[in-house]
Amino acid sequence: MSVTIGIDVGGTKIAAGVVDEAGKVIARRRIATAAMHPTAVVAGIVKVAQELLAAAPGVAAVGIGAAGLIDGEHGIVLSAPNIAWENVPLRAMVSDRIKLPVVIDNDANVAALGESLYGAGEGYGDQIMVTVGTGVGGGIVIGREIYRGARGVGAELGHMIIDASSAATCACGNTGDLEALASGNSIGRRARERVNEAGAADVLKRAAGDVSAITGELVGEAAIAGDEWASAILDETGHWLGVGLANFVNIFDPEVLIIAGGAATGTGELLLGPARASMAERIIGHAWRTPPPVLAAALGYDAGLVGAAALARGTK
Amino acid sequence: MSVTIGIDVGGTKIAAGVVDEAGKVIARRRIATAAMHPTAVVAGIVKVAQELLAAAPGVAAVGIGAAGLIDGEHGIVLSAPNIAWENVPLRAMVSDRIKLPVVIDNDANVAALGESLYGAGEGYGDQIMVTVGTGVGGGIVIGREIYRGARGVGAELGHMIIDASSAATCACGNTGDLEALASGNSIGRRARERVNEAGAADVLKRAAGDVSAITGELVGEAAIAGDEWASAILDETGHWLGVGLANFVNIFDPEVLIIAGGAATGTGELLLGPARASMAERIIGHAWRTPPPVLAAALGYDAGLVGAAALARGTK
Repeated sequence: MSVTIGIDVGGTKIAAGVVDEAGKVIARRRIATAAMHPTAVVAGIVKVAQELLAAAPGVAAVGIGAAGLIDGEHGIVLSAPNIAWENVPLRAMVSDRIKLPVVIDNDANVAALGESLYGAGEGYGDQIMVTVGTGVGGGIVIGREIYRGARGVGAELGHMIIDASSAATCACGNTGDLEALASGNSIGRRARERVNEAGAADVLKRAAGDVSAITGELVGEAAIAGDEWASAILDETGHWLGVGLANFVNIFDPEVLIIAGGAATGTGELLLGPARASMAERIIGHAWRTPPPVLAAALGYDAGLVGAAALARGTK
Repeated sequence: MSVTIGIDVGGTKIAAGVVDEAGKVIARRRIATAAMHPTAVVAGIVKVAQELLAAAPGVAAVGIGAAGLIDGEHGIVLSAPNIAWENVPLRAMVSDRIKLPVVIDNDANVAALGESLYGAGEGYGDQIMVTVGTGVGGGIVIGREIYRGARGVGAELGHMIIDASSAATCACGNTGDLEALASGNSIGRRARERVNEAGAADVLKRAAGDVSAITGELVGEAAIAGDEWASAILDETGHWLGVGLANFVNIFDPEVLIIAGGAATGTGELLLGPARASMAERIIGHAWRTPPPVLAAALGYDAGLVGAAALARGTK
């Protein structure tokens, strides 16, 4: 049975694994990445890859998922603002060292591929994955392949503008895009803006009275514990997520929508319930048409490395 | 050389033609359709098809583009609100009469295919066509094929919400979708809302002083004639079109965007210029990335029938 290595390169960690054809992770490595410079990150990638190659023989290829705009065809990270990379030839830098074929792609793309093959999307056809974490990422899987567009920089689903008149701005410069309105960051922002409301007492207490310490994660924890004020903020965020999902349904008519990321999967139905309701109202033909299922992702943090490994195997 | 028939079924006319492999229309028929009932429309389709079959021998198949949500796989018009059709088995109704293979699809889809093969999109890869007419329609061509989604009802690009807080409503029930903000109808609506402004004099005069007679078309004519107030309305409409186009670029990363429909092609750069500018500002990576070209459609009203004929030929 052929095995490949999948590597998920994030802002703070490199998570890697040897993955078999069934999507099972048969060996793992994970290291923290303090440094952001390409040379240091490549050294980390090579280190985990070499350890895994020693642990599990027979690896045919390596797949890497990394944040940013990526030209997979030429193996280049065009732009990764979070780690200040521009035009880094990541594929060559890694393959020169480990002497194996290497493929690279956007982290959200490979996560969507992983979920579609082995996770919540398994068995469904064309699908859209939206990752609601600190920001909002996305992946499009059409015909069991990642859809990337002409230059490989499509599927920037978080930057779809849904409420142009909104005051909420995104790091990309747009106002009222999905990331500005339905990310984990937006949950924290809403809570901080309304912290003077009476209902905010519990959340503020969780932040030890420090307004600036109120995060989306903390609001999510309060909501899960039963706090109504925090739940209302998740409800509003879910509403906006649903507006975005309705757009994706009207554009793609997918068989299923997968929602990943801590802000969504960690809060369960508190976010997904309102999102489904808001989406259903806004789908063309909603009077006679059943909305597609909106499912929580199933692979958690493994989606990226499993998907990267599948990409390396040429699984489409 | 094999030829096929393409038929474009609109709300007021049936336009049909025999089309060769190069996309050239070698015979034409066009009839008005006063009646909307399926039986009457099918009789009209059969009439033009039989006339064309007599005029040009060797027709291998017939393609039909019709407005509405269409299940091409089963040959059924699921819903065509404008002509009050629900679950009409159009393909069988036509093929039973003309004894040739028939394919049916959404009119915007076949128009996008026609433009991609023989019009403004010729030579480009993945592309999005947005039709700005009375409403806003759309078609997605990926890998030289129409992208339809799981149930064939995707590519409803006009119903993508871009300004949810807007007061502008769409016939579909959504607020602030592309059709509400960037259609020919929206141009007329803006003009009527602002008719008390001093600059409105020329447009109002063109409507013979009747505010309710101010249409998008009339505003377009005034703008082309040099009226600044009318131009400003097209400029604002183009701005919203550009927001929608930016979303499509961020989602699809297409090689080209084609804009069809009278409201866009009839007003030339007055609408497309502002749309391009607004789009360029909102594309991810716009600081280092060249926006894809935004081109006016080239085939005019022939796009639908040429695309339907290409679909019938199995051209993908």
